[in-house]
Amino acid sequence: MRELQALSVMSGEHGLLVLDQTCLPAAEKWVKLDSISETVAAIKSLKVRGAPLIGVVAALSLAHAAERGMSESDLDRSIEELRSARPTAVNLMNAMDRLKKVRRESSSASEFVSAAEEIFIEDQALCSRLSILAGGLIEDCDQVMTICNTGGLATAGVGTALAGFRWAHENHRRIHVYVNETRPLLQGARLTAWELGHLGIPHTLICDNMAGFLMAQKKINKIFVGADRIARNGDFANKIGTYSLAVLAKYHQIPFYVVAPQTTVDSQIESGSQIPIENRAADEVRGAKGSFGEVIWAPEKTRVYNPAFDMTPADLVTGWVLDTGVFSAGDVAKGALVAA
Amino acid sequence: MRELQALSVMSGEHGLLVLDQTCLPAAEKWVKLDSISETVAAIKSLKVRGAPLIGVVAALSLAHAAERGMSESDLDRSIEELRSARPTAVNLMNAMDRLKKVRRESSSASEFVSAAEEIFIEDQALCSRLSILAGGLIEDCDQVMTICNTGGLATAGVGTALAGFRWAHENHRRIHVYVNETRPLLQGARLTAWELGHLGIPHTLICDNMAGFLMAQKKINKIFVGADRIARNGDFANKIGTYSLAVLAKYHQIPFYVVAPQTTVDSQIESGSQIPIENRAADEVRGAKGSFGEVIWAPEKTRVYNPAFDMTPADLVTGWVLDTGVFSAGDVAKGALVAA
Repeated sequence: MRELQALSVMSGEHGLLVLDQTCLPAAEKWVKLDSISETVAAIKSLKVRGAPLIGVVAALSLAHAAERGMSESDLDRSIEELRSARPTAVNLMNAMDRLKKVRRESSSASEFVSAAEEIFIEDQALCSRLSILAGGLIEDCDQVMTICNTGGLATAGVGTALAGFRWAHENHRRIHVYVNETRPLLQGARLTAWELGHLGIPHTLICDNMAGFLMAQKKINKIFVGADRIARNGDFANKIGTYSLAVLAKYHQIPFYVVAPQTTVDSQIESGSQIPIENRAADEVRGAKGSFGEVIWAPEKTRVYNPAFDMTPADLVTGWVLDTGVFSAGDVAKGALVAA
Repeated sequence: MRELQALSVMSGEHGLLVLDQTCLPAAEKWVKLDSISETVAAIKSLKVRGAPLIGVVAALSLAHAAERGMSESDLDRSIEELRSARPTAVNLMNAMDRLKKVRRESSSASEFVSAAEEIFIEDQALCSRLSILAGGLIEDCDQVMTICNTGGLATAGVGTALAGFRWAHENHRRIHVYVNETRPLLQGARLTAWELGHLGIPHTLICDNMAGFLMAQKKINKIFVGADRIARNGDFANKIGTYSLAVLAKYHQIPFYVVAPQTTVDSQIESGSQIPIENRAADEVRGAKGSFGEVIWAPEKTRVYNPAFDMTPADLVTGWVLDTGVFSAGDVAKGALVAA
């Protein structure tokens, strides 16, 4: 097997290791994934998160299983098991579809392993392209805003939306990033604040309900977010809170960009209303849990609504930044997302 | 002294006691406030919170000091000390102004005590009027939304915005209340969820960033919020996050009401831009703290923005519910808030 290394995943003869993101920012703890069921559990528990990274790790997990001699029928079953670990993430589905096809067309384990490794390598390359395309939209002295984590912790490369900030910073644009904490799982506060600190990019953490007031004060020039799935018409699903930011951006006339790999586009679905939205456990909203501890602050039986994602309609989006190019609403209306 | 009792404050011969709101919902712990400095500390640490309640408790604290024979010059100094304990709350300023006037016009301690007790009694009466006026705007089967806590924990009576839900519920309207958790101090998750549970009113807790997605799904019919200070033109300051809700409501064409006592109107200021916004400690945003424990989830030196309030302009408001009546934008433009 090839030696592959990224900020949050390592693969090679030593096995498959992932950085346990539930332990950040307190500790950098690597976890070995020795079986498909361990990988499924790591995805479900959000040790591994970020739509592109999930697809990459699922693929590499299958590669290791194939290398260890897993039977064809068990590989098929494992592909289905991994596919259902995170229903909103289309990258995972795409990665699984690719490997299923390879498995059917050849019984060579080494071909299967190469195909899985290719998913990792492609992700790194497309992140680099996204970085340049999104970064190119950022001007000197821009104050930008983001939600969740869309960096090297979400992909096998430099990331998607966050990669644009990285490129702008490395190319000497003086930028400041406002990070929404991203309740309930706090990916902004825990992961993005950590990653921006790691990269030396100036940033300020806010609670999600402060975003509008910052925009009203004209402190935000542009907003960049990731996507878990994009429909043919440009509607997209992303971390809960993205839709509110998009409406607030529209009201304040702030450009709002979605940055994601082309593989995030689900050509099977016409509009966002067809994207399934995963609901998660009530205790996530009743309190907070992570390497920092576990607290419940609401009355213990309080009824809770906890969608992990929301859906942002295309009419709130200024531009779609894919690794294949930057598309306007006009382009998207002409079918550019699917043709790309 | 008179025996006065409410959900979160008790006053009488036994002294002045307040329900420590930082301990809710885990424990109902009453704290005795034996001095002005203890009252100032209780307000600053949010043991006592809610704009109307702060004014009431500050007044009663002065009444007890006067009863114990505090000198006139010390009373004057204490009035100033209490006034500066929470700069955004105009009710506190109004209460202090009233007592300052009484102190100057008479050297009778019993008159001073009566004037302070009158502030409590008036607050109960005006909450009842607010309850009827706000409740009257709620129809059977309405699904409403609120932020922070504006109930019996924020006033000496049944509350302001939350009092309307209570009136509607007690008058057999089947309602459901969506409660924004209200980061960073979680007054919605801790206090409003507790109080609605206590009253038997059906409710669902959400993270602040889920509000827009609920509106998009047409699950919210009306929004009711409180206010810490209202300008002559109808702009108002309230808990951070209120402004985002107002913009989201406008976009989704959902009626948005502010409910507050007439004393919240600051006739000295023309528009919201003159309202000072208090910034609070960074660790509130880096984690969470309360009776449930203390956790920090962000990298420890992360820079933070933490305004306690935001400012909502009048053009986003459907109606102003004061104890003196319900006012439209047209009324407010004609000076109704100040004349009322």
